[in-house]
Amino acid sequence: MPTYTAPVKDLQFVLHDVLNITSSDIPGYDELDADFTNAVLEEAGKLTGDVLAPLNVVGDKEGCRLENGVVYTPTGFKAAFEQVKEGGWPGLDMPEQYGGQNMPYVIGTAVGEMFSASNQAFTMYQGLTHGAASAILAHGTDEQKDKWLPKMVSCEWTGTMNLTEPHCGTDLGLMRTKAEPQDNGTYKISGQKIFISAGDHDMADNIVHLVLAKIPGGPDGIKGVSLFIVPKFLVDDKGTIGARNGVSVGSIEEKMGIHGNSTCVLNYDEAEGYLLGQEHKGMRAMFTMMNEARLGVGMQGMAQAEAAYQNAVIYANDRLQGRDVTGTKNPEGPADPLIVHPDIRRSLMDQKSFVEGGRAFLLWGAQMIDAAHRKGDKDADGLISLMTPVIKGFLTDEGYDMTVKAQQVYGGHGYIEEWGMSQFTRDARIAMIYEGANGVQALDLVGRKLAQDGGKHVMAFFDLVKSFCKENGDDEAMVDFIEPLKTASKDLQAASMYFMQNGMKNPNHALSGSYDFMHLFGHVCLGLMWAHMAKAANAALVNGAEDTAFYETKLATGRYYMARRLPATSMHLARIESGADTVMALDATSF
Amino acid sequence: MPTYTAPVKDLQFVLHDVLNITSSDIPGYDELDADFTNAVLEEAGKLTGDVLAPLNVVGDKEGCRLENGVVYTPTGFKAAFEQVKEGGWPGLDMPEQYGGQNMPYVIGTAVGEMFSASNQAFTMYQGLTHGAASAILAHGTDEQKDKWLPKMVSCEWTGTMNLTEPHCGTDLGLMRTKAEPQDNGTYKISGQKIFISAGDHDMADNIVHLVLAKIPGGPDGIKGVSLFIVPKFLVDDKGTIGARNGVSVGSIEEKMGIHGNSTCVLNYDEAEGYLLGQEHKGMRAMFTMMNEARLGVGMQGMAQAEAAYQNAVIYANDRLQGRDVTGTKNPEGPADPLIVHPDIRRSLMDQKSFVEGGRAFLLWGAQMIDAAHRKGDKDADGLISLMTPVIKGFLTDEGYDMTVKAQQVYGGHGYIEEWGMSQFTRDARIAMIYEGANGVQALDLVGRKLAQDGGKHVMAFFDLVKSFCKENGDDEAMVDFIEPLKTASKDLQAASMYFMQNGMKNPNHALSGSYDFMHLFGHVCLGLMWAHMAKAANAALVNGAEDTAFYETKLATGRYYMARRLPATSMHLARIESGADTVMALDATSF
Repeated sequence: MPTYTAPVKDLQFVLHDVLNITSSDIPGYDELDADFTNAVLEEAGKLTGDVLAPLNVVGDKEGCRLENGVVYTPTGFKAAFEQVKEGGWPGLDMPEQYGGQNMPYVIGTAVGEMFSASNQAFTMYQGLTHGAASAILAHGTDEQKDKWLPKMVSCEWTGTMNLTEPHCGTDLGLMRTKAEPQDNGTYKISGQKIFISAGDHDMADNIVHLVLAKIPGGPDGIKGVSLFIVPKFLVDDKGTIGARNGVSVGSIEEKMGIHGNSTCVLNYDEAEGYLLGQEHKGMRAMFTMMNEARLGVGMQGMAQAEAAYQNAVIYANDRLQGRDVTGTKNPEGPADPLIVHPDIRRSLMDQKSFVEGGRAFLLWGAQMIDAAHRKGDKDADGLISLMTPVIKGFLTDEGYDMTVKAQQVYGGHGYIEEWGMSQFTRDARIAMIYEGANGVQALDLVGRKLAQDGGKHVMAFFDLVKSFCKENGDDEAMVDFIEPLKTASKDLQAASMYFMQNGMKNPNHALSGSYDFMHLFGHVCLGLMWAHMAKAANAALVNGAEDTAFYETKLATGRYYMARRLPATSMHLARIESGADTVMALDATSF
Repeated sequence: MPTYTAPVKDLQFVLHDVLNITSSDIPGYDELDADFTNAVLEEAGKLTGDVLAPLNVVGDKEGCRLENGVVYTPTGFKAAFEQVKEGGWPGLDMPEQYGGQNMPYVIGTAVGEMFSASNQAFTMYQGLTHGAASAILAHGTDEQKDKWLPKMVSCEWTGTMNLTEPHCGTDLGLMRTKAEPQDNGTYKISGQKIFISAGDHDMADNIVHLVLAKIPGGPDGIKGVSLFIVPKFLVDDKGTIGARNGVSVGSIEEKMGIHGNSTCVLNYDEAEGYLLGQEHKGMRAMFTMMNEARLGVGMQGMAQAEAAYQNAVIYANDRLQGRDVTGTKNPEGPADPLIVHPDIRRSLMDQKSFVEGGRAFLLWGAQMIDAAHRKGDKDADGLISLMTPVIKGFLTDEGYDMTVKAQQVYGGHGYIEEWGMSQFTRDARIAMIYEGANGVQALDLVGRKLAQDGGKHVMAFFDLVKSFCKENGDDEAMVDFIEPLKTASKDLQAASMYFMQNGMKNPNHALSGSYDFMHLFGHVCLGLMWAHMAKAANAALVNGAEDTAFYETKLATGRYYMARRLPATSMHLARIESGADTVMALDATSF
């Protein structure tokens, strides 16, 4: 069975050596000294490694079951959820006013990585609750916040997000779920929602569904969509749970993975609902949480890759097969361990350099969200808004590929469920799809974000890269990083230029290259992250850090990324510059 | 539920317009006129589309079960297998002497694609039988052939291949299964074999296991391995089935996919076995079938991509979501079909251009196998030997990626098992692993095949490309094909040169780039195939072919491959030329 060991030291390195969080002027960051942060990470590491990781396979094997309208989670989930609640983990970065610990989002993200890596299906119950609570926090009345948030921050009650219907996913304007206004100010919600993660279960006393629906008579399409709070059980003014509301579980979806999470079809039949935010402004309310939610999904991609990678390393060291062509490494044994073979190394280095680069990218993004939310930094808000589809799309695509590579290290055993490597790929697969399929992320990036505020944010990104390269261009210790980063960044600029010059004439010239652009952008971001990490590692070595092997390994891993992964940018650029002609050549009937 | 429609016209195009099989001088090809070939393909198309494809989901859902030592296949498999036997399909390319139809391997491959695409798990029962029969045909005594082949060619008895043991997969020298010689010339086989596809089931009267084992006292390692025929039931000289032999099913493996195939742990306990071929030459006997078997697995990768692609096209045309940015295409409907969106097109074109290029590559390879076996063409034998790891590794990696892309077109529905798209990816995943994991294919290619016979075969390949480019360089209708092919081929030559110049100093400089080389080679091969197909399509159009849309579509699809897929070669070259330094930099303990 796979194991999971939280990468506490790697997280510390990014938080302190690279992002210098304690010397940041973001409110709340000054409390994050290394000892305190370390203690939080160590505790989260224990819980996730000892309690959640062993339940990962259990959840996959058992799945959830629906019996007489009641959803049961896999063996052990309920007890583990109690432990998570007792530790106060769900409210880590929530306001103290509602029972949270008010820590920055960057710490929530570092801890979130461990939770997701150890057990993605389990973690989604609290993840969805966090998302729903954030929406209420941002758009609820004081009364609504007081009523719902304390129980949600503690996860006594969990939350869900209800967007998709059978005939509409991305195109929510087609939505049919109705919300009929009542004389008492409430609404009667009717309709069917599908793919509702954590839609029902036996681990909380109540479930607070956030439901998108249309109020009859409102504008057509997406502009007529409103957001509602629809609890599983009605709650009176004193917070006491009352009658069952008109929402029931139609079925639990049979999915490729994340079996431990109950993905439900929910049927709303005149369920009582309460408007959250303004009428017909439901999409705006959803969008305000989008950056966080999408960063969270990008994290899942990276986290599954981390978990799979850890096990691939163990197997590559344990499994004896073949001999090192440059000379036997294990003369006492019948064969050398897999890890002597260059192609196994290539695979492991692909994984390692992605995971560590992706981690830095995520934490950098989380820091930008903190700067935007806690400091009102508009530039950070613009930059993270631009980066969000890259974080989501690139990290989940690459994360998935890395789980496939980790599985491949096991050979035939990787295909056998008993070894648990298949689960990592099956679980990681969903992150490419939900919270906006990755093609939609690419569309968002190229069709919307790139030109936002006159292209100001992408220019700011280029300036970041340029000034870093300028500042460190003369540093001989950085030569393996600066040159490749410059080349990759030039490819990204050329691609942007191509879109500007050709996208106006024909938007398909831009949209045909959107997916490649997302990946090209992702590689440049990881290249930049590795350059920053290299600088931090060099500094630590110069400053006489004790664990030189740790920093040397960072440098070697970064050099691999620059030499082996960044060359992908020229391929993406070539594809982008081929435009729409070959992409759009065929009639729909000729496929 | 997914459907499957056999691509008869596309197969015909490759066989007749591109490979010109009827005008080939390979013995047996002269009988393959278009009408006859067409009739065979049409019949196979009906059987696979109507009978096997509907059972694909059934096999996935039900799996195989072991009850009291007996393995039961999924509902409907047995009846379908009877239909396959009655049609004589298993013996299509087997000698008439043993009940086969003596058709060329190229036709067996064309038909095999349909079988694999419609139901891979089911097709493996006859596929393994074919492999085992081929081994007996190549290495058996006349007596052995007469005894086993007629029943195996008809699939009354099926076959298996027993290589892997719990502690050894690739490194078969570590094998522990023993074969004790008996006074009567037979052997007693004892040991455990795992991952035995079609290892036991209820669809045949007997199962003929081919088992690798060591005769005590023989040479150490791989040089002491012999191959044995070990039937499930003993068979007397008259061919009558007798007592149960000492082989039993330990368990059925729970796998990520191909649930309809019974992948068994087989326990041999003094089972009676008969030496096949020479003592201690078991690996040689296995290797003679390797080209065919690996081509067959490469075919599975392509075939799953084809099946998944077909369904992605249907969904992209049916599902209404969003609007064409260049102007509404379905004004009467609530939204336009997915297929209007450029990024959906990109995905479908990736799939289509891969599948059709891969199909040509496979059939070209099958033709080389025919030339080698039926005509004794040593050059063809050398070239297909070089190509085999490329066919296996590249087509299964890319085929898998394409099933993931097809699944992605479905958005959330792609993750729900009910829609069947997950099965294509789960089934396709195994092809990257078995019959030599793809990393081992890359090692075989770079470590062995490239330098074989003084590098003669890779030079022959370069000459093929060069002379094609020269012959067609002045043809204006070929300009979109020739230039990209030249560029890609130069990248491949540069990579080969890098290996030659650096691999001698340090073999890791070559082996660190082996995987990229396999993919680089694969892209050049598909580029060459597309150039050939373009030439054939142009010729058909010039000659006034009726179905101009068919040939125009071929040209457009080929242009896509050249513009969008071939640029990968420069990325692979850059990685290769970065050598082993970054790949091998870390200590094993630093991962």
